[in-house]
This record gives sequence, C-alpha cells and structure tokens, in this order.
Amino acid sequence: MRHFVVRSHDLAAGADVSLNDLPGAGRLDLLSRCVTSALLCSHDIREDVRVSLVVDGYVVGFDGSELRRLNPDERSTAARIRDALAAREGAIGSMAAHPSPGVSIRQGDFESLLGGLGAGRTLVELHADGRPITERAPPEDPVFVLSDHREFTDAEAESLGSAADDRVSLGPEALHADQAITVAHNYLDTGGYTAY
Amino acid sequence: MRHFVVRSHDLAAGADVSLNDLPGAGRLDLLSRCVTSALLCSHDIREDVRVSLVVDGYVVGFDGSELRRLNPDERSTAARIRDALAAREGAIGSMAAHPSPGVSIRQGDFESLLGGLGAGRTLVELHADGRPITERAPPEDPVFVLSDHREFTDAEAESLGSAADDRVSLGPEALHADQAITVAHNYLDTGGYTAY
Repeated sequence: MRHFVVRSHDLAAGADVSLNDLPGAGRLDLLSRCVTSALLCSHDIREDVRVSLVVDGYVVGFDGSELRRLNPDERSTAARIRDALAAREGAIGSMAAHPSPGVSIRQGDFESLLGGLGAGRTLVELHADGRPITERAPPEDPVFVLSDHREFTDAEAESLGSAADDRVSLGPEALHADQAITVAHNYLDTGGYTAY
Repeated sequence: MRHFVVRSHDLAAGADVSLNDLPGAGRLDLLSRCVTSALLCSHDIREDVRVSLVVDGYVVGFDGSELRRLNPDERSTAARIRDALAAREGAIGSMAAHPSPGVSIRQGDFESLLGGLGAGRTLVELHADGRPITERAPPEDPVFVLSDHREFTDAEAESLGSAADDRVSLGPEALHADQAITVAHNYLDTGGYTAY
C-alpha cells in the first residue's frame, strides 16, 4: 500500500470553513489537492492508497479501497474534509469515527501517527538535501510524509528525521505537496522509471 | 521554453460560469489545475512556461514571464480564465486581447495552433502507446499537447499525430492532464531523471 501523510499547520479542527474561500480556511485548497492527487488517476480511484491529513490534533483518513466516490475538483473534496472534521466528536480515545465510506477521523498528532505506522513500512522523507529518488528501488509499502505550504517545525523535522528509513529528493525544484505526491506516484507506477 | 497546450472539449466561450460549480462549467476545474500545475512550483511562478488553453474557437494564453500573480487554488485561476473569455470580443483577426498581465485571448482552433507553433520546437504527443519518455533526451523547447477529461477527437488525434515530433508515454497509469503536466515538468527539471 502507498500511504501519504500530509501535515496541516493552519487549519483548525473547528474552523468555520467557507467553500468559497478554501485558501482562507487553513489552506484547505492544498489539502484537497493532496487527497485527489494521491487517490485519483484518470477515471479511477487508486485502491491501494491511503491518505492521512494531520489537522489540529486529529487525523483525517481517506482509504482508497473503501471510498465510494471522489471527484477531482477541490471544492467537493474540501467538503469531504470539512464534514470529516465536523464528525470529530465521534472520535473517542483510540476509536475513529467514519463519516462516510472510506473517510475516517480519529484523535492523533504528527508524532503519534509516525510512531504508530507499524513494521514493514518504508517511511520516506522528502527533502531537498536527500539522495535522488532514482538511487533507491521503489519500496513495497512506502509512506511519504509531506508538509503543507509551511515548513515542518523543528520538532516535527526531528521526529520525521529519526523515524524515516530514507531521505530522498524528487528533483531540483521545490514542489507543492500535491505535485510531490504526483511525482512519487509516477516513480512507483514506473518501478523507478523503468516500466512504461 | 516549455509550452503546454490543453484542448478543452466542453467549455463554451460564452458559458455562464459559476465559480461554485467549476466541474459543471465545462470542467473549468480541470483547466484551472492545468494552468497552476504548469506555472507554479513552491512559492514561485515558472517564468519559462507558456500555457495555451484551446476553448471553443479561442486560445487563452498564460505566459509565465509576464504573469504578476497566480494563486494555486482552482477557484481564483478559474476566475482568470473566465475573465479572459469575457474579453474575447477584443480579440480581432489575428490580434490578441490582454485582459491582465501575462494573460491573453485570441481567435484560434486546435489545428491552427499546432500549425503555428513555428520551427525549433519539439512537439511531444503524450500517448499510452508512445515510447517511454526516458528513452529520449529532454528537448530544449518542448510543446506538450494534452486533452481535458475527454479523448481527442479522431480529427484532432490525426492533426496531432502528423504534427508531433515524438510520441511518448509517461507511465503505465492513465493520468489526469494536470498530473501529466507535473510529471512532464519533473522529467524536464531533472534532465530526464538524472539531475537532482
């Protein structure tokens, strides 16, 4: 399975979200694009993909194997994220709430999410100073961890650095998080740029 | 320069666009994402990029070297496209109208656009049956031609096939047009996956 973790820094769980101003709602536009970039290819949902958005003490999850429908536009996906956050009171202790098929919300923060990924996964840190991604074979069960429009805080960068199995660069240009997800998918789809 | 041409099939030049329903406005959501994927990387406009949206007898152009501001969300870019289409009466004969810096609209269709690209450009057709993009060196002045959510018509495919200098595949998965643009950029940014 491919897992993309996106850390939101500006969205409050109880934010009064206007779908007409997604950038103003803690950059919900960017989070929406991350979800659709991770889960959609042309006319299809990628079933082997999970997305975890880390938002203000909660983890909003999208599971490609269970999602019924996902449209590629920002606004409809933003509404799904907003609705998941609105269901947060159903997330009690370690129990998740499931506002719609394939969408979940549970309590959790960045550090606990990284710590709870379990064995067998390859946690990949994307970093400008990492080695070229082409230098490593595509892992079987990769977890890619990204930040929104802000840099990781020092504490987050330290947690990530110590949890990561590898640190790689996707290229010389700094990309948006959703663009990085698309590039990571392409690297995996092609078996490290070898199978077309 | 990198040039991305996107053929819209469903958007009418005189459409009554609602920014609250971009998918319903001829898939304006998709066209917006193509523009931002082509022109933005993290915190920056890509100055060496041009985008041409072929919409219902008009070509809406975005020129990275002249654009003043472009936000990454769909809605604000959709408004730029809508405003460009609204300025179409200023596009007379071969003269373009310039509704805002770096944004233009002129009369033209898919075939005339391909025919008018001029010498020195490498027109690249993206196609599932094309050779792997890794088999060719990145061209100096590439033009990538993409369709929206619909396939090219037979006539368009024929025009494109005969005008194209190369036909390449980006990978085994069929991607959305905006995702394909991101992958093409990454291929060019890294000099064909060699420079990170």
